[in-house]
Amino acid sequence: MRVHIVGTGLLGTSLGLALTGAGHAVTLADLSPTAQRLAADLGAGTVGEPEATDVVIVATPPDVAGQAILTALERFPEATVTDVASVKTVLLHEVRAACAAGDLDRYIGSHPMAGREKSGAIAARDDLFVGRPWVVCSDDDTPAERLAQIVALATDVGAAVVHLDPEFHDSSVARVSHAPQVMASLMAAQLVDMPADGVALAGQGLRDVTRIAASDASLWTQILAGNAAEVRDVLTAIRTDLDTLISALDLEPGSIATIAQTITAGNDGYDRIPGKHGQAPQKYAEITVLIDDTPGMLGKLFADVGELGINIEDIRIEHATGVKLGSVEVAVVPARQRELEEGLTSRGWWVPEAVIEHEGQE
Amino acid sequence: MRVHIVGTGLLGTSLGLALTGAGHAVTLADLSPTAQRLAADLGAGTVGEPEATDVVIVATPPDVAGQAILTALERFPEATVTDVASVKTVLLHEVRAACAAGDLDRYIGSHPMAGREKSGAIAARDDLFVGRPWVVCSDDDTPAERLAQIVALATDVGAAVVHLDPEFHDSSVARVSHAPQVMASLMAAQLVDMPADGVALAGQGLRDVTRIAASDASLWTQILAGNAAEVRDVLTAIRTDLDTLISALDLEPGSIATIAQTITAGNDGYDRIPGKHGQAPQKYAEITVLIDDTPGMLGKLFADVGELGINIEDIRIEHATGVKLGSVEVAVVPARQRELEEGLTSRGWWVPEAVIEHEGQE
Repeated sequence: MRVHIVGTGLLGTSLGLALTGAGHAVTLADLSPTAQRLAADLGAGTVGEPEATDVVIVATPPDVAGQAILTALERFPEATVTDVASVKTVLLHEVRAACAAGDLDRYIGSHPMAGREKSGAIAARDDLFVGRPWVVCSDDDTPAERLAQIVALATDVGAAVVHLDPEFHDSSVARVSHAPQVMASLMAAQLVDMPADGVALAGQGLRDVTRIAASDASLWTQILAGNAAEVRDVLTAIRTDLDTLISALDLEPGSIATIAQTITAGNDGYDRIPGKHGQAPQKYAEITVLIDDTPGMLGKLFADVGELGINIEDIRIEHATGVKLGSVEVAVVPARQRELEEGLTSRGWWVPEAVIEHEGQE
Repeated sequence: MRVHIVGTGLLGTSLGLALTGAGHAVTLADLSPTAQRLAADLGAGTVGEPEATDVVIVATPPDVAGQAILTALERFPEATVTDVASVKTVLLHEVRAACAAGDLDRYIGSHPMAGREKSGAIAARDDLFVGRPWVVCSDDDTPAERLAQIVALATDVGAAVVHLDPEFHDSSVARVSHAPQVMASLMAAQLVDMPADGVALAGQGLRDVTRIAASDASLWTQILAGNAAEVRDVLTAIRTDLDTLISALDLEPGSIATIAQTITAGNDGYDRIPGKHGQAPQKYAEITVLIDDTPGMLGKLFADVGELGINIEDIRIEHATGVKLGSVEVAVVPARQRELEEGLTSRGWWVPEAVIEHEGQE
């Protein structure tokens, strides 16, 4: 296919690299001559706007994507146009309101769910999309052959295609991505004015809840603003629950049940998160191994686990404050737990299976 | 020392095992004859109330700990009395209000920050406290020799002693432990009524934010109720910030700056969380390795890292929806990043360093 990419930042350049590698003829355009030249030098395609193209991928910053899509629909009257922005409804409305009659069917929104902590063409990778979900927003009016073009490109870069309508997409990411970002940020903000001695009591629970609070503020401001209505809906629902809990903390009669319901509702919601590879949620057995914190110890540990023929489903490393000792939690299917414990113990590992923190009185 | 333990659940029995192992003479008491007998059978000590003892450790459920401390102060007029509850101020007030004159100096509150996902004597481990913080709440009136007794016991079970006053302790754990639990639970509760197709878009960000939402509801209800005033203070501050953000999501003039401030305040708070071993926070470099999800692959990977002589600071395994491929993020000190990437690549590993999610447009 002939693919024209508008915007040669991280995502656009990564797409150029991956699609060029898959044999497509890629052209590149960016408002910055330096950026488009850099992307071309890296091997992402050829600089310049072609006479005609099969597909245009708009990979600009989210706040100018709508205009870029409209420009592409007008400039390439035969092409299918997609984009990579993480909020879809606002863009669709913008395109629908302004595009020429009949052109709307040529626009198919995408959201490849991949990113990096760095930005710009220089950070691009041809395998950025491998194994990541790629949401495609089409509807009943979308011509099958145009939809097939987008699916083919997503598949060619190694992504797993997921078909969703834009409202459902935006509502879902508000809940599984945007609201969690807000909750992490709000929680972390409470640490700013704490004495260091108090923050020093932080355990793995706080670290997990606030990890994404380290995210890029400029990108997330655009994302939250772009999905403002949906995010506000979730946050308003959370505020209602928060108000209920705050009231219950006066410990008046009936309040203990309210506090308990807050925690059990969280238990129920947590259980809905799918496990690995999109399977139904599975409970893994966790065993804890205490190790000296020196190079090679983890290698030795996992080599021993490998020799036992047991697949590790998840790992968490925990470091206690003030102690030169690490604990490693290894999650395996419950049927293999006993075998793993015995096998590691017999190989000389210290397996207390006892330092699991998140249920403890941390 | 002669140590009498009141309450032979998980913590009491684990303490009995560890202190017996360290050479102390431990006696055990529990309202349940079966529970105290089980603890003794496991090797945690001898059943029965002694004539006299040096230290009493109250390890009952938090909601009856106050009465148990008062009883111990009365029954053992020479002994030092401590407890293991995770909220200290309420207990101190209860003891102060009711204990005999002069007895208050014999009470020194403790909070060993350890736990398990299981409960009861049968789940006890003699190494439950190894490498964990053990908060000791004393004040200027605390006799040095009594304080030394508690510090000695905490040290003997392998814990790292931290001296804090009870108000500071309760205020700190409200922020680093109790409020994070609430935020995780509130977030997870929003998933209860979501369509499965939407929850399927969940990435590592949501998983991290909600991991502790799986915690035990009964235990956490006691903890939140026991520290209600401090928890309410933090949650009220969070609600103020949440209200500000919800208002900003109307996108009126000035609102974009407010949204950005929410995220940057979270950046600042996150930066205050100490790194491993109580050191100052350190930024690690993360590299990503894509692996087949089969037994032994992780072992092979970490064996190779070990051969390179590089210490792994942290690990995260991520599973993409619908793809039989795992990505492993390995955190190392930045100075070793390049060496690790090159070493692993030369050994045939697929190192895209590209699937880092938490800054992405997930």
